[in-house]
Amino acid sequence: MIAVVGLGKAGLPIAATIAESGIRVIGVDVDAKRCEMINQGVNPIPEEEGLDELVRKHGGKSLVATSNYEDAERCKAYIIIVPLYVDEAHNPDFKILESAFRSVGRILNEGDIVVLETTVPPMTTESLAKKWLEEESGLKLGEFYLAYSPERIMTGYSLSRLREFPKVIGGVDEESGRRAYELYKKFVPNLHLVSNARTAEFIKVIEGCYRDVNVALANELYKIAEELGIDFYEARRFANHEYCHIHLPSTGVGGHCIPVYPWFLIKEMERREKFSNAKLLKVAREVNDEMVGYWAEKIVLGCMAVNKPLNEIKICIKGITFRNGVKELYHSRNLALARLLMDKGLNVFVYDDLFTEEEVEELGLRWMEPDRADVVFDCFSLRLTLKDHNEMLIQKF
Amino acid sequence: MIAVVGLGKAGLPIAATIAESGIRVIGVDVDAKRCEMINQGVNPIPEEEGLDELVRKHGGKSLVATSNYEDAERCKAYIIIVPLYVDEAHNPDFKILESAFRSVGRILNEGDIVVLETTVPPMTTESLAKKWLEEESGLKLGEFYLAYSPERIMTGYSLSRLREFPKVIGGVDEESGRRAYELYKKFVPNLHLVSNARTAEFIKVIEGCYRDVNVALANELYKIAEELGIDFYEARRFANHEYCHIHLPSTGVGGHCIPVYPWFLIKEMERREKFSNAKLLKVAREVNDEMVGYWAEKIVLGCMAVNKPLNEIKICIKGITFRNGVKELYHSRNLALARLLMDKGLNVFVYDDLFTEEEVEELGLRWMEPDRADVVFDCFSLRLTLKDHNEMLIQKF
Repeated sequence: MIAVVGLGKAGLPIAATIAESGIRVIGVDVDAKRCEMINQGVNPIPEEEGLDELVRKHGGKSLVATSNYEDAERCKAYIIIVPLYVDEAHNPDFKILESAFRSVGRILNEGDIVVLETTVPPMTTESLAKKWLEEESGLKLGEFYLAYSPERIMTGYSLSRLREFPKVIGGVDEESGRRAYELYKKFVPNLHLVSNARTAEFIKVIEGCYRDVNVALANELYKIAEELGIDFYEARRFANHEYCHIHLPSTGVGGHCIPVYPWFLIKEMERREKFSNAKLLKVAREVNDEMVGYWAEKIVLGCMAVNKPLNEIKICIKGITFRNGVKELYHSRNLALARLLMDKGLNVFVYDDLFTEEEVEELGLRWMEPDRADVVFDCFSLRLTLKDHNEMLIQKF
Repeated sequence: MIAVVGLGKAGLPIAATIAESGIRVIGVDVDAKRCEMINQGVNPIPEEEGLDELVRKHGGKSLVATSNYEDAERCKAYIIIVPLYVDEAHNPDFKILESAFRSVGRILNEGDIVVLETTVPPMTTESLAKKWLEEESGLKLGEFYLAYSPERIMTGYSLSRLREFPKVIGGVDEESGRRAYELYKKFVPNLHLVSNARTAEFIKVIEGCYRDVNVALANELYKIAEELGIDFYEARRFANHEYCHIHLPSTGVGGHCIPVYPWFLIKEMERREKFSNAKLLKVAREVNDEMVGYWAEKIVLGCMAVNKPLNEIKICIKGITFRNGVKELYHSRNLALARLLMDKGLNVFVYDDLFTEEEVEELGLRWMEPDRADVVFDCFSLRLTLKDHNEMLIQKF
C-alpha cells in the first residue's frame, strides 16, 4: 500500500496511475471536499485526459482519499507531491513541504521509504527533507529510505507522460536509490535510476531553465525582428531544423514551474557568491518578465492610431490564463498585462473562454466580449486588432 | 554561365555543385595558386567529403577558376561568397565584401543578377551591396537584380547540406527574388523563397544566435553542476528529450560564424539605442568568452595537486583548433586558453592531431605529446588529466 501526499494536478494522476497498476493507494490531501469527490469517483481535474475514467474506477476503492495522515500509517511507501511556492524575492517557501514531511515523519516506521516528487532546489531532499523526517520519526536515514523523482507532468497530458516519458529517480544514499527504483518500476515503465537525489533534482530544474532561456531568446529575437521590419514567424519557420529549435515569443513565462525553477539555481549561486555562474539565467528571467511592458507599449501605440480619444477606447485583453487552455492564473503574465494597462489609467476589459463574466469580476477586472472592444490584444497569438483606426499611423510604429 | 566569387570553404562547394548540375561556372578568387590547383582538378579542401571527386571531374573544364574578374564578364549571374571579418570591437569589416561587389559592379550588364551568400548583418544586401553595385555599374536596381541566400555549409558536410538542407533565398525586390529563386532552383533541390533579402539574412543570423545562447546555457549549467557536485553529463542525458535540447559545454565558441553573428544584432540594436533588445545575446557572448578563464582556473587548481613545484609542471593543452577535426584557428578558444595560461607564466605546451610540431612552433607555441606532460587538458572532452598527484587535494576543488 502506497500513500500519495498531495492530490493536486500532479499528485492525483500519479495516485490514479498507481491504483491502475493494481496497488492500493491512500491519497492524503488537506482539502476534505476534494477527498470526498475522489472517494465518490468524481475527478476534480476534468481537463486531465483519461483521469475521469481512472478516478471513476478506483476512487473510494483502491484509491482512498483522506485528510488524515493517520489513515496512511500502515503504508510502507510515501510519495510526497505538494506545491512549493516562492516568495516575492524568489526564495522558495518550504512551509507546505515541511508540513507534509513532518506529518509523514510522525507516522513513519522502520523500513519505510519516502519519495519526493515536487520540483525543489537541488539538495533539498538530502538536507531539509531528511532532517524533517529524522526529527519527527526519531529514526535515522538507513532505518528509513529517502529518494527523489521529479514529476514531469503537463496538465492535460499527465497520464500519458507517466506512461511514456522517461522518469528519473535517485536516492539520498545507494540503498534508497535501489529501493525507490524497485518501487517505482511497478507503475512507471520508462524509469531510470540516476546517481543520487541531487542529480534527479537538478535534471528537473535544468529542463525548466532550457525552456525559460529559450523563450527569452525567442522574445528577444522577436523584438529585434519587429525593430528591423522582419516577420519573426516567417524567419523562425525557416531557421528551425533538426539542430535549431527557436521557441515561440509570448507575453513572458507564467505558471508555477518555468519562471520559478531558474531562481532555484540563481539564488543558490548568489548564496555562494558565485554571481557570474547564473547570469544568463538571470537575464533570461528579466527578458521574459519585461515582455509585459513591451506589449503594453505596443497596445498603447495601437490605441494612438484609433480614431477616438484615449480615455474612450475600450481595450480587451483576450486570454488571461498563464497558458492557453489551462484555467490557472498563477504568475499569469497575461493577467499582469491587463493590470499594468489598468494602472496606466486605460479602459481595460478582459475576456477568456475559460472564465465566466462573474469569475472575471471576482478578480477585480471588467469583462467584455472582444467584438465590442476598440482594441483587442490576443495574449496567445500576440495579435493586436484595432477597430476604426488610421492605417497610416500604424505603419509608422 | 554563372560566376562564383570566392572559392573558399563555402564558395568552392557551391561552385562544384553548380558545375555538377550541368551549368558552366567561372570561379573568381584572389588566390592565384588556389585557382591553378582547381583548374588542374586538385581539391584545395580535402576535408570536404565528396569535393575531391567533383573538382577532379569539373576543375579546369566546366569549373574554371581565375583571379581576373574580367574573365567572368560574360556571366549573367554572380554569386558572391567571400569572408566577412569583424574587428576587435565586433564591428563587421566590409572591405573584402565591398571589393568583391565593386569588382562585380564593373563587369555587370543590364539584366544580370547578383546573389550574396556570405552571412551579413540584416539589411546589408539592400543597402551596402545595392549601393556598391549601382555606383560601379551605373545601372539602377531594376536594370539588374539582387538577392540574398545564406550559405548553410558546415566544413566536412557542405555538399550534402547543399543537396539536402533547406536553403532560403530572398530578393531586395520582388522581381529579384523571383529570378534568384528560378536560378538557384537549377542546382538547389530544397529551396524556399522568402519575403525579402532582409528576412533571408535574419534567418541565418538567428540560427547562429540559437547556437550561441544554447552553448552559453550549457556552459552556465555545467559550472553550476560542478559547484553543486553533480555530474553535468549524466543530468543532461536525462534532461534532454523531444522538447529539451541542452547543448554540450565547451571552452567557449570559436570560428568565423557563431561567435560573430550575435554581434550583428547586438551592434545594430546598440546603434538604435535599443540596448535592452539584445541583452540576452550579449550576456551569452560574455558567458562563452569567459569560459577560457574558467578552464584556466581549473587547470591551475589541478596543477596545485601535482607533486611538483608549479614552475616545473608541464601543461599540455590538447586540441587547439576552434572545432574538433577542422584545421582552423580563427577565434579558437582553445588557442586562447593556451595563451592565457602562458600569460600567467605557466609552462605550457600544445598538441593537436591536425598540426605538426613545426606548424605549432610557427604559431609561437611549444609542442609536446600529451604522454610527456604532467597536466593534460583535452579541450574537446574537457578532461583534465594529472600525473603523480595528490588525489585528496583534487577532491577538495
